[in-house]
Amino acid sequence: MKSVLIALATLLGWSIATEAQTPYDCVNPLIGTQRMGHVYPGATVPFGSVQLSPDTRYLNMYQQQKYVPEAYAYCAGYQYDDTTIYGFSHTHFSGTGHSDLGDFLLLPLSGKPNWDSILKGQERPYHRFTHSDETAKAGYYRVKMGSPAIQAELTATPRVGIHRYTFPEGESAHLLLDLVYNIYNYEGKNIWSFVRVENDSTLTGYRQTAGWGRTRTEYFAMRLSAPISEYGFERMDQSPYQGFYRKFNERRNFPEMAGKDLRLFLSFEPANQPLVVKMALSSVSTASALRNLEVEGDPKSFDNAVIDARNAWTQELEKVKVETLSKSDRISFYTALYHTMLSPTIYEDVDGNYKGLDQNVHQSTGFTNYTVFSLWDTYRSLHPWFNIHQPARNQDMVKSMLAHAEQSVHGMLPIWSHYANENWCMIGYHAVSVLADALVKQGPFADPKELLKWSHKTAQVPYFDGVGAYRQLGYVPEDKSGNSASKTLEYAYDDWCISVIAERAQNDSLQSYYRKASEQWTRVYDPISGYVRPKLANGNFKPDFDPLDTHGQGFIEGNALNYGLYVPQDIKGMVTKMGGEKAFRKRLDYLFEIELADKYIEKNEDITRDGLMGAYVHGNEPGHHIPYLYLFTDQPFKTAQRVRQILREKYLDKPDGLCGNDDAGQMSAWYLFSALGFYPITPGSDEYVIGSPLVKSAEIQLDRGKSFRIQTVNQSEKNIYVKSIRLNGRKLENPVIKHEQLINGGVLTFEMSPTP
Amino acid sequence: MKSVLIALATLLGWSIATEAQTPYDCVNPLIGTQRMGHVYPGATVPFGSVQLSPDTRYLNMYQQQKYVPEAYAYCAGYQYDDTTIYGFSHTHFSGTGHSDLGDFLLLPLSGKPNWDSILKGQERPYHRFTHSDETAKAGYYRVKMGSPAIQAELTATPRVGIHRYTFPEGESAHLLLDLVYNIYNYEGKNIWSFVRVENDSTLTGYRQTAGWGRTRTEYFAMRLSAPISEYGFERMDQSPYQGFYRKFNERRNFPEMAGKDLRLFLSFEPANQPLVVKMALSSVSTASALRNLEVEGDPKSFDNAVIDARNAWTQELEKVKVETLSKSDRISFYTALYHTMLSPTIYEDVDGNYKGLDQNVHQSTGFTNYTVFSLWDTYRSLHPWFNIHQPARNQDMVKSMLAHAEQSVHGMLPIWSHYANENWCMIGYHAVSVLADALVKQGPFADPKELLKWSHKTAQVPYFDGVGAYRQLGYVPEDKSGNSASKTLEYAYDDWCISVIAERAQNDSLQSYYRKASEQWTRVYDPISGYVRPKLANGNFKPDFDPLDTHGQGFIEGNALNYGLYVPQDIKGMVTKMGGEKAFRKRLDYLFEIELADKYIEKNEDITRDGLMGAYVHGNEPGHHIPYLYLFTDQPFKTAQRVRQILREKYLDKPDGLCGNDDAGQMSAWYLFSALGFYPITPGSDEYVIGSPLVKSAEIQLDRGKSFRIQTVNQSEKNIYVKSIRLNGRKLENPVIKHEQLINGGVLTFEMSPTP
Repeated sequence: MKSVLIALATLLGWSIATEAQTPYDCVNPLIGTQRMGHVYPGATVPFGSVQLSPDTRYLNMYQQQKYVPEAYAYCAGYQYDDTTIYGFSHTHFSGTGHSDLGDFLLLPLSGKPNWDSILKGQERPYHRFTHSDETAKAGYYRVKMGSPAIQAELTATPRVGIHRYTFPEGESAHLLLDLVYNIYNYEGKNIWSFVRVENDSTLTGYRQTAGWGRTRTEYFAMRLSAPISEYGFERMDQSPYQGFYRKFNERRNFPEMAGKDLRLFLSFEPANQPLVVKMALSSVSTASALRNLEVEGDPKSFDNAVIDARNAWTQELEKVKVETLSKSDRISFYTALYHTMLSPTIYEDVDGNYKGLDQNVHQSTGFTNYTVFSLWDTYRSLHPWFNIHQPARNQDMVKSMLAHAEQSVHGMLPIWSHYANENWCMIGYHAVSVLADALVKQGPFADPKELLKWSHKTAQVPYFDGVGAYRQLGYVPEDKSGNSASKTLEYAYDDWCISVIAERAQNDSLQSYYRKASEQWTRVYDPISGYVRPKLANGNFKPDFDPLDTHGQGFIEGNALNYGLYVPQDIKGMVTKMGGEKAFRKRLDYLFEIELADKYIEKNEDITRDGLMGAYVHGNEPGHHIPYLYLFTDQPFKTAQRVRQILREKYLDKPDGLCGNDDAGQMSAWYLFSALGFYPITPGSDEYVIGSPLVKSAEIQLDRGKSFRIQTVNQSEKNIYVKSIRLNGRKLENPVIKHEQLINGGVLTFEMSPTP
Repeated sequence: MKSVLIALATLLGWSIATEAQTPYDCVNPLIGTQRMGHVYPGATVPFGSVQLSPDTRYLNMYQQQKYVPEAYAYCAGYQYDDTTIYGFSHTHFSGTGHSDLGDFLLLPLSGKPNWDSILKGQERPYHRFTHSDETAKAGYYRVKMGSPAIQAELTATPRVGIHRYTFPEGESAHLLLDLVYNIYNYEGKNIWSFVRVENDSTLTGYRQTAGWGRTRTEYFAMRLSAPISEYGFERMDQSPYQGFYRKFNERRNFPEMAGKDLRLFLSFEPANQPLVVKMALSSVSTASALRNLEVEGDPKSFDNAVIDARNAWTQELEKVKVETLSKSDRISFYTALYHTMLSPTIYEDVDGNYKGLDQNVHQSTGFTNYTVFSLWDTYRSLHPWFNIHQPARNQDMVKSMLAHAEQSVHGMLPIWSHYANENWCMIGYHAVSVLADALVKQGPFADPKELLKWSHKTAQVPYFDGVGAYRQLGYVPEDKSGNSASKTLEYAYDDWCISVIAERAQNDSLQSYYRKASEQWTRVYDPISGYVRPKLANGNFKPDFDPLDTHGQGFIEGNALNYGLYVPQDIKGMVTKMGGEKAFRKRLDYLFEIELADKYIEKNEDITRDGLMGAYVHGNEPGHHIPYLYLFTDQPFKTAQRVRQILREKYLDKPDGLCGNDDAGQMSAWYLFSALGFYPITPGSDEYVIGSPLVKSAEIQLDRGKSFRIQTVNQSEKNIYVKSIRLNGRKLENPVIKHEQLINGGVLTFEMSPTP
């Protein structure tokens, strides 16, 4: 097989082990796979439905844990420090801090596996591997594992995962298809599985799980390049009603299997050819999965699929061309750009059918349907980034959200859209921010009245997370609904976004209603302590307040010092209320410089030393706008200091290179904006504030043949301060650019300086 | 409400408590509900998808059994001896001896139910009732129950169950919707349930179960005539992963519920109107159920639905007009006719979509799709009866079987088609008999080559129930596959049916192959003992043979004496082999006259004293042709004796009127043929043998305006012997008529006599 690999490498022009050059070559999917990043290193295409990636463990870890994984570390199925692979599954979230998926784990085995014990889960097969035998590229993953070594290669089309397994010569080849395996597994998560061996090289089936996505079914169709010589399964159900199936030897070579917990083996005669497996997914049915397979999978050889995946990635990556100060920066930049295209994911079949939130099958008419909206994270920078880099997709994402709302029995836009489920994760109704931002930046690509209708419905569901009380009292009372200060701040911001939509929809009364509601953040500001604090239903602030504590203080995954600065819709008002420019700047200094006691850190998995600068938490989202708040103080240059410091310290071109969960691309989108020198501090407005570019130059390819260029003068590691900014040669008076200016193309020139 | 009832009764022209007159009035759905019949008394339309019927218990029974019902007695959910109703569910098998279904149990309650304890299953609500407060008609059921009494009325359209509940005046009204309830329940049978409260008077949802039908999902859409004032649920899951749903008070007035085991309550303000509930079913989706509701349910008032159901029944019942010797006979006849139209059931939505065996959604193009094919029972008389009474439907049933085969991963026609499942119940592949019988009697309504293709595939699946060995050895060896003698006999008959199809398809080689295979019944005939006996793989008969025992003797639900006479494809050959006409007649005499020892009876729930005449078992199917075998002996007149005796003793116009499970209409179809004086002793041939008519006259309405009349001369209780038979005035030489003679219309005249 070596010759095939070299041929492939040549074909693709991979500069393996030489200097990274093209954007494609700069992407390193292993960055962020160590510890906190929660990204996966496997194969996918931009926004692809299939994320085919290795699932790993420390050997001793799963011996101890009886195959129930330690959940948090394995949100993406893979940890860089691990030494064993126990399969390749087809669905993975990128960067999340809670998880699910891991559908349809395949593990190639040679020799004579003890199927009886493996299928019953008494023995867990795996392969040892080291990173020297591993290659991860955008859309391609390869590993040699075990002894004698089996080589596994992975690639993908939007809806099909493609495996190529090269077995030791002369050895028989087997596959374990493990439908028991789950990411974030627990007893009873598997609801039902169903598998048919349609013929000697085709399987179909599905699995329903009740996890983070409570009612989630994934269908598959699988094509093998060699005929199956023998197969069988075991069913681990606690209540294995056998019915009249007892009349068969169902366990071996019987083509129909069903039950809660299934494991299958497929055996093949020894062959000189590698075994290619194509696994298509669908949310609709096995018939639809088969159609996806026929359209996307069957016509492609493995090698062609790798080339197509590379081309797809290259096309998206090369929309942004950067010159950087170092090779490291170039790798960080393009890997961040790669990370922004791992979700949301396409959630429809080749014919446009998809399963909706109501569990019915819908047709996406006039748009492509997407899922995986981790909105509490991604409205901040990722969707704003899409309005520049992926405007058409972001329109489709908005339309997917509207479809979600239409299918919602609550009439609500998504909070966290999860494979035809709403998992309700985190707080706020930030879809309205995405709608407002897209509408303001892209114009009325959808009927503003429609956007307003669903935004208004969403914001008025009284049983949702304290909203009823919020509407009644003007704030969320802590004694009625926890994390009330966070909720009040975010609802107020979200309401401002709705007012923006209402303005575009020319609905004066709703515009004024929501504009007024957006001022309600002041209701939880305590002028005595100077902090945003949780209030009780009786109107008093909750006593025993500690602005550094992240628990029980009215904030979710944050504290008052940090999260309490969340008023993006009225930053100037907040600064004034908190004592004016100087006092506010001192508050920021304190935030970035304090040494946080251990007791404030150990309690929260989202707030770790890795992501901290003083008490500022870059590893989590609520503070992502904070470094830019200096711009509104008497020392605006400190934004440049903080931003450059974060870009340098919190994003590294190594497996441990992310300081917290990438959170479906939000952390990476922050990097992209900040490295380019501007940031959408208030999503839903058409303005970006100016930070401190890290790149030497950049060219962003826009729609309709236009491009936007960023140039720097005197850019260097030390020249972090922006001395002047010119747009198309004309000097900007304020450190602000408008989206319209950007999108019309042109040149933004930063003159850099070593002093503020 | 009384006035409404009287008005309705007047409208319908019900002759309550007066002499039964019209065929509709002669139908008594309570016949067969006591003990063994396993029919249900509730409301349905001919071949309707919805069977809305009360589910009952002895009060003490369910106190003792913690609400897990004693399964066998409750195959149809109802037992006449019971004193309490605990709800009305929407799906019921008719007459089966194993069961499932019971979907979506509704129970009306007034007053202040203790929901907390009811929903958690700690308290089981029910209503006492007596039969004096109960009325059951075709398509309509009414009961007054509890104190203060709630009146429940039920009716149905093909896909919608309609309830009308009249609550005590001024009392608040509630419904319990119990998704935990199942017929044939056991721990873990519920796989998943999903319910949405779409608005204040509409619910949708579904339930998946793993029972006799292993992967079965039923969807519903439910419309209420009054707005829900409050609702709530409990989830009984063992592994209740709550996820981020914890942020809601999901249990009350939260419109989205999911879990394995759900119970809901719906409350209504007191009202002067009865509460009407319309529950539409679908196999496809809640959207499809809603469409079914909109098309069939919404436009109809309860009263109109009752009238439409009555008209539908009247139309089908009046296709056969009989004069009988007594009112009892008339009731038995029309109730039997009613029982033949309770299954197979329509299994498609108003738009022709249905869930197929492959779990995908299919469209029935050019036919109506049916399910519930209990073929080991129904190929004998029910489907032959359909070729006279329901020829168009029987064609569609055949086409449904072909669709089933196309969707089968085994490429097999149904064995027991069960709501998009194959439950594999009983033995043989008797769909081929239905195909052959329909083809021979109705001509090539479908391509005979297509029928042959699927029949041949079905008969050649080597892993199916001993077929591999049967093809190899010419018989099923008992040591490889149990009940081998039964299987060998039935496969041989089925193979004869395939040869008939092959003949019509002009495939000589398959015709001759299967004709030859049909002779293989001789391989299990032991000339020494004179009995069909199970043979071992080594070619020897299995030792320790007891021709009276029904267990371990190579027969399923029968013994050698009885089941060993199953060679319908070559009755004359069998008679010859078993010693000729006289010896064979003596064998039949012995069979009918022996007093069977208790030890042979107690072991088998399908063979009870009720159904026995000597060792002949009328309560079960394998011997249904046996009374007609006398026709092939030296004393053919004994057929008349036996048939009349069975008609008199085994079919009674009272709740305990069926001597065994009605078996999806097979027992009743036997009655119809026998009462009319002829019987399809060899389904797949175009001939009927003549028995002894019980009716005085009959007229069967045929297609294309034709009719077939049966007349008798000197018919009486004592004149049981047929002296002569004339067809259109011409005397028949042999006691045989051909289907073609019947279907062309005409008059068959029996001259009856008190002596043979």
